[in-house]
Amino acid sequence: MLDGAAPVVKLRGLVVGSVVRLEQGKGKKPGGRDNRLELLHGLVAEDLRDVNAVILERMKSPVVLISELAGHIISSGGKRLRPMLTLASAKMCGYAGRRHVNLAACIEFIHTATLLHDDVVDDSELRRGSATANAVWGNKPSVLVGDFLFSRAFQLSVDDGSLKVLDILASTSAILAEGEVMQLMTSNDTSTSEAAYLDVITAKTAALFRSACQLGAVVASRPSSEEEALKALGLNLGILYQLVDDALDYAGRSDTLGKNSGDDFREGKITLPVVLAYRRGSEEERSFWRRAMEEGEQREEDFGHALELLEKHGALADSFERARHYGAMARDALGLFPDGEAKRALLGVVDFCVERDK
Amino acid sequence: MLDGAAPVVKLRGLVVGSVVRLEQGKGKKPGGRDNRLELLHGLVAEDLRDVNAVILERMKSPVVLISELAGHIISSGGKRLRPMLTLASAKMCGYAGRRHVNLAACIEFIHTATLLHDDVVDDSELRRGSATANAVWGNKPSVLVGDFLFSRAFQLSVDDGSLKVLDILASTSAILAEGEVMQLMTSNDTSTSEAAYLDVITAKTAALFRSACQLGAVVASRPSSEEEALKALGLNLGILYQLVDDALDYAGRSDTLGKNSGDDFREGKITLPVVLAYRRGSEEERSFWRRAMEEGEQREEDFGHALELLEKHGALADSFERARHYGAMARDALGLFPDGEAKRALLGVVDFCVERDK
Repeated sequence: MLDGAAPVVKLRGLVVGSVVRLEQGKGKKPGGRDNRLELLHGLVAEDLRDVNAVILERMKSPVVLISELAGHIISSGGKRLRPMLTLASAKMCGYAGRRHVNLAACIEFIHTATLLHDDVVDDSELRRGSATANAVWGNKPSVLVGDFLFSRAFQLSVDDGSLKVLDILASTSAILAEGEVMQLMTSNDTSTSEAAYLDVITAKTAALFRSACQLGAVVASRPSSEEEALKALGLNLGILYQLVDDALDYAGRSDTLGKNSGDDFREGKITLPVVLAYRRGSEEERSFWRRAMEEGEQREEDFGHALELLEKHGALADSFERARHYGAMARDALGLFPDGEAKRALLGVVDFCVERDK
Repeated sequence: MLDGAAPVVKLRGLVVGSVVRLEQGKGKKPGGRDNRLELLHGLVAEDLRDVNAVILERMKSPVVLISELAGHIISSGGKRLRPMLTLASAKMCGYAGRRHVNLAACIEFIHTATLLHDDVVDDSELRRGSATANAVWGNKPSVLVGDFLFSRAFQLSVDDGSLKVLDILASTSAILAEGEVMQLMTSNDTSTSEAAYLDVITAKTAALFRSACQLGAVVASRPSSEEEALKALGLNLGILYQLVDDALDYAGRSDTLGKNSGDDFREGKITLPVVLAYRRGSEEERSFWRRAMEEGEQREEDFGHALELLEKHGALADSFERARHYGAMARDALGLFPDGEAKRALLGVVDFCVERDK
């Protein structure tokens, strides 16, 4: 099918439509989704400047290539969502010190290190709308600079001096790596269950969100009930973040997504939309998924057909629905905390993550 | 040159001859080189069993592929030289506790993680006579399981609970990564100086040897003079270890080396033998090195010709001579410590590293 591009565009229109439906009835103004983060940005602006200064200072190395490559990925326009969670959580816990700044930088370093290694593992060429480090410099420096940033994260947490913090970050890093390997094992396996998919995203994404929030309670020496509540906030937020991310890989447009739409399909990465469509599909449809995602025999029109099947079975709409479920739990996790600017900012983050379209 | 194999074999004979020359007059019996480690093995045997038990326990993961892949590289017959240095250094410092066991395991985890990433970066297929993990499972799991082992190392050091230890290990990991990136930058660059080469091997290899020895003094709470002496032992031992390793890549035979002889030449990795031969060579010879190692245009007879040039300029013999210089400094670093079994064992390690042929 040589003119395969047209149905894809048409289908993307339909699919994007189903995303927009999620936001009906909320009186959203244009740009309203980004406004959900406005409270957060206002709350942590000053601290975030300090975090960025720490990041710039600590990614320096006498080895020029390290500073260049680390600078490329760190400055390539990430949302800094994870470090902002640490900053806001600490504020909500009434913390008045400065430890949260270094720890937020530490969280961002761990995140950045995993991004570098992810892009190598996935052979990605585009991230946040820019060429990936591995596309510019090749895989080798990306692997090694990832190691460097991991080490820098640990140096930062050693500087903090709390064994509890170190324990959290070291365990989280091990879980992230386990999650990435689990993802590799479910890759190209269309029989992956929703439970297995949830295990993967909990480990590879939600564990770091959880620790980012938890650290806010830890630096403020809050009681374990509040620490657990912040862990629950982060965990649920992380799961919903990845659910939306994976749905957007089918529903989003490359120009707003900052990466190539359809990457997961082309790589045979099994995410919830496919898990649902596969289980809900006919035997013929399952053969299609197996050929395209398991055996890797993809034709030009396949992505368009995949989008049709996802639409037919409501797989994207239901992925967003699942995300809302975790959003509800994240909101309830905040119930313990007194109303105030920080709590409203964190509730805004939940809304943002549920509703984002890029 | 279709019958290019013959001169290579002949030249390897010559070159191996130059290695054997280093050991003249020492009354070596067959197998004598390995005997150099006998004292060490006897000294730490019991502790090393505990280290291996910790390694086996801590490399476990609910993710099967991680346990499999980590088990493959950890059990593939490494000498455990670095953890044994920690054990022997602690013993020489009169340490009677158990912290050195976990820390030795930690050193081995960091080493193993870097091996996994090295093999990916170098596209190696053979290590210690076995297929590399990346050759068996591909690059992706090797990158991620390396990350997992790094994290496990940090978990182990957090369990130890000493911020000084954590600081040493986190900084060392950052230096290792810097060394690997520096090596990448000098790769294929025949203008690399001996100083730049030394910087690379100091960072990528000697820094971990240094920390392995230093930890022995740290757990025993010895005064800084002894800690510095053990750092010097490790640093010089590490430099000489890598010098010999790089020379053996030309001088060694694949069957005893456990990896492919000539790998560095084929990959265009610039090590001391080439640095020396390039500087001592004619313009015509330099053109050869540039074509073969910089431009990567290698012909079947090139490795044989490279060996001829190394022999002509005494580049391998002088690499081993340089190694002996660091060996002398390593021995003198031990001067502070009282005579005894541990000191003799560590002196034996220096001899072993200078004289090893695999």
